[in-house]
Amino acid sequence: MEKLYIIKIGGNIIDSPKELDSFLQQFSAIKGYKILIHGGGKLATEIAEKSGIKQTLVDGRRITDAETLKIAVMVYAGWINKSITAKLQVLKCNAIGLSGADANLITAEKRKHPSIDFGFVGDILPDGIKSKSIMQLLESNFVPVFCAITHDGKGQLLNTNADTMASALAVALANSFEVSLVYCFEKKGVLLDADDDSSLIPELSVSGYEALKQKGIVTKGMIPKLDNAFNARKLNVQNVMIGHSSQLAQMINKQKDAATYILN
Amino acid sequence: MEKLYIIKIGGNIIDSPKELDSFLQQFSAIKGYKILIHGGGKLATEIAEKSGIKQTLVDGRRITDAETLKIAVMVYAGWINKSITAKLQVLKCNAIGLSGADANLITAEKRKHPSIDFGFVGDILPDGIKSKSIMQLLESNFVPVFCAITHDGKGQLLNTNADTMASALAVALANSFEVSLVYCFEKKGVLLDADDDSSLIPELSVSGYEALKQKGIVTKGMIPKLDNAFNARKLNVQNVMIGHSSQLAQMINKQKDAATYILN
Repeated sequence: MEKLYIIKIGGNIIDSPKELDSFLQQFSAIKGYKILIHGGGKLATEIAEKSGIKQTLVDGRRITDAETLKIAVMVYAGWINKSITAKLQVLKCNAIGLSGADANLITAEKRKHPSIDFGFVGDILPDGIKSKSIMQLLESNFVPVFCAITHDGKGQLLNTNADTMASALAVALANSFEVSLVYCFEKKGVLLDADDDSSLIPELSVSGYEALKQKGIVTKGMIPKLDNAFNARKLNVQNVMIGHSSQLAQMINKQKDAATYILN
Repeated sequence: MEKLYIIKIGGNIIDSPKELDSFLQQFSAIKGYKILIHGGGKLATEIAEKSGIKQTLVDGRRITDAETLKIAVMVYAGWINKSITAKLQVLKCNAIGLSGADANLITAEKRKHPSIDFGFVGDILPDGIKSKSIMQLLESNFVPVFCAITHDGKGQLLNTNADTMASALAVALANSFEVSLVYCFEKKGVLLDADDDSSLIPELSVSGYEALKQKGIVTKGMIPKLDNAFNARKLNVQNVMIGHSSQLAQMINKQKDAATYILN
């Protein structure tokens, strides 16, 4: 099977022009099929604040009302997605910026929850990834660059978690490619001590992960990311790793100690 | 040659949900290859005003400074483009929202002018349309939906005139398809009396157009649109028409008196 690299970058990288440029150079240097999924960064929050739109958090999760969704679509699918696409084109990487609504590539449903209305937050449907259309794009030598906006197929755009989108894409395409799913963020990987890069855990198994959670070593923000990582690994994604965006090339080469590699 | 319909809708239609929905229904019903180019509408101006960003006009043309460009990209490539895409998907039209940066489809250069700096305004380069990539998308059964944002291939996004983009796409693709270029706006076509729909000019030749300009019947806003229309016709675009968005189906069927048809 051909190799496919699915790389996710977080908002912290997007907010740092220097780190973003360095990352994009490494990304564009990857040979063969690849997909980028990007998070949001601070701009949406800044615009919401300037516009006097209050952000509501429930259990640490943002509620996406109609105005917040509009800003998310403008910033993620508009400014950030097209800026990254234009930058990648300079690097001769034939990026095509996409949301889940484009070519109906990713359908989601408004989050169902017994007590909380999260607003326009979308959870990707089990058959929500249109692998065939994504493969058509890849085979046309386009490099899909996804923002984390999806749609419900009934005309509603939805705000979706970028980590989950990356995992869902990897799982859906793992039947057709040898997929490597790479989560790039601002840490060297999963750390025993969050402030000490030398405490990197080079490999993490399900049982190791459970132990880290019980000991409270893995913090709240990392849990959804790692859940996505382990879920992808369980569902036949061949390689899953989490590391610093500056180490992308090393991670792609599966260099030891360049990231935390997720075991099955 | 296969038929290709290139349809441009203006901002007035986008600002009217009812007219937009009616238009999109007619657009989605067109059989075969088609491309949509959409204008901007009022939202960008509203956001700029709210954010305290002053709009500078020189000779009736907007100067696009860095902040104005950011808003244009957010609104045109983000909110409007993805909203239209999601609506078309409901109508089973496999829309894929695009800017000129995506897949490097349309490259432009910052406008050159002896005395005025228009800011981040892009004029499409003579070889700026990547017909081959657009054809790959069409052959994959995607329906390209373009906002009027381009890039210079050096990392800079640029604000481009949507009428000109439609014309440039039509000209570039006229070698490969029998192209119909349809300008949809809020009037029935070119009118002898702007306030009287019954004064429609059903066909307009170059000499007729010159006469209308000399008599001052064709107003300032119409001249760039008609220049684009005649330019396309001159450069082998087989059918060019200008009419009301509600008449799209009739225009496609070349129904008499449904629009102003541009003669060579």
